[in-house]
Amino acid sequence: MLKAKQVTIIGTGLLGASLALAIRAKGYTGRIVGVGRRVQTLDQARELGCFDDLTVSVDEALEGAQAIELPDSEGAEGQVHLAVLAVPLGYFEDVFTKISRCADEKLIVTDVGSTKASVCELAEDLLPHPQMFVGSHPMAGSEQQGPAAADAGLFEGKPCVVTPEIQTDYDALGLVQSLWKLVGMRVIVMNHIQHDRAVALVSHLPHAVASMLVNAATTDDGDALDIASSGFADTTRVASGDPGIWLDIFQANRDAVINSVEKMIQELDRFKKAITRGDTGALKRMLEGAKAARDGWETNRKEAE
Amino acid sequence: MLKAKQVTIIGTGLLGASLALAIRAKGYTGRIVGVGRRVQTLDQARELGCFDDLTVSVDEALEGAQAIELPDSEGAEGQVHLAVLAVPLGYFEDVFTKISRCADEKLIVTDVGSTKASVCELAEDLLPHPQMFVGSHPMAGSEQQGPAAADAGLFEGKPCVVTPEIQTDYDALGLVQSLWKLVGMRVIVMNHIQHDRAVALVSHLPHAVASMLVNAATTDDGDALDIASSGFADTTRVASGDPGIWLDIFQANRDAVINSVEKMIQELDRFKKAITRGDTGALKRMLEGAKAARDGWETNRKEAE
Repeated sequence: MLKAKQVTIIGTGLLGASLALAIRAKGYTGRIVGVGRRVQTLDQARELGCFDDLTVSVDEALEGAQAIELPDSEGAEGQVHLAVLAVPLGYFEDVFTKISRCADEKLIVTDVGSTKASVCELAEDLLPHPQMFVGSHPMAGSEQQGPAAADAGLFEGKPCVVTPEIQTDYDALGLVQSLWKLVGMRVIVMNHIQHDRAVALVSHLPHAVASMLVNAATTDDGDALDIASSGFADTTRVASGDPGIWLDIFQANRDAVINSVEKMIQELDRFKKAITRGDTGALKRMLEGAKAARDGWETNRKEAE
Repeated sequence: MLKAKQVTIIGTGLLGASLALAIRAKGYTGRIVGVGRRVQTLDQARELGCFDDLTVSVDEALEGAQAIELPDSEGAEGQVHLAVLAVPLGYFEDVFTKISRCADEKLIVTDVGSTKASVCELAEDLLPHPQMFVGSHPMAGSEQQGPAAADAGLFEGKPCVVTPEIQTDYDALGLVQSLWKLVGMRVIVMNHIQHDRAVALVSHLPHAVASMLVNAATTDDGDALDIASSGFADTTRVASGDPGIWLDIFQANRDAVINSVEKMIQELDRFKKAITRGDTGALKRMLEGAKAARDGWETNRKEAE
């Protein structure tokens, strides 16, 4: 169970609102407070019925948590509060600055950002108690956006990377791990450099590839899409994601993304050369290797769920 | 309705068996005969209960159709029979040769091959009545294989390209169109060159991209896959398809596939350069263009279903 008197979710879009629904569904009985920027989003979040309070002010939410008085019988660990940043990467600097104005040593901070090096650096620079920050990347999402699309089962069975630093407080790490485990995630601990390289390959590169595949298929005359079917639909699905969010991600993880795109170009070039020279053996090895790796991964993933 | 006294489906794998199930489900009352190479596959096909007969012999199936005597009241158009090649591209030459030994002018032939130039050329060269051949490419499939995975709804709402030539018989074209419409497909008529270019972009390129994406993500150490999630799953799903079938497809549509892979490399290179020089505007245009094209396509597709 989650031993915190309040969970403050900053950003009540799809991920933030789903997290609120999920922890409530899993039996968390403390306060859940949402912070949003737009009144319309807050109204939609309110309709979910899982937030105790919703506000546009980070200060108000965090000061509200500090004011909660629990009986001593709850023990020291229950006295902490947890803030989760669930806003696009472009807003992190602003939100960390706001948190820094009213953070006490009982506030544990985590996030759902898709890259971790830039986030960990901001936390180190801006938070008064950086040892209480633990980076997280729950690998769950959808092309849908906003609280209206929130889903208590969004995180179930999916991996969540947690990226502690040398100085990270053990209790803070423990609490953040228990948050993701509570909502059904498989927690994987990595350092932020490993995370950013891996996520460039399995998330950022697939997004770039899906978007560029749509562009390649539409450059000529667009008629080709008339006969596109389920294979095209699956391979390009993520290209319907929010361009603004992905622009932030690509820029925040620039070097690892560039490396992964170069790798992809090399693989496609090997494939092209093998077809051009009619090297059936090489083509077969490439296709069979990909199928074996994909099938093996799918099997492991299903077992983990 | 389908005005043919027999439909002979040569190849009782996923597509062939699904087609038999589908035309029966849609009320076709003539004979459905399946031709397979392996006894085990024929046994599985038999269990579907939609075939009147199953055999390993093309001759036997086609001669059986010729022997059906219908009353004159059925009209001339009901006296034709239809053969559908639903085998991998590598077997087409062999099957056309077998058909040529016992084809009469009442036999209309079509296929489900993923490329059309090579198939149309073989039909022209090998069939005694090439005007009775109409190339088809039903854009439906699954990573699953074999008659056990057959699904009467596989074709519903999907596009099917039909590629008549100048000399194609009008009645043959009409019958083949009515076959695909019967099973719920949206029929699109194109010449085989247009088809092969378009299908390279929206089907063969996505497959190559999905496979090479898996290879790019696994070249280093494979650990990256530990944190792969639904975005990776969708983008790479087709890489689990049968390597042998795809090898045939890539080779049969070699030139168009090479062109489409070159286009993809160009798009990825533009993307890489834009990130490298920090050109936010260009990146944004690429991502927004892809999203708009993908969303527009998805909307049209849902309306068509």
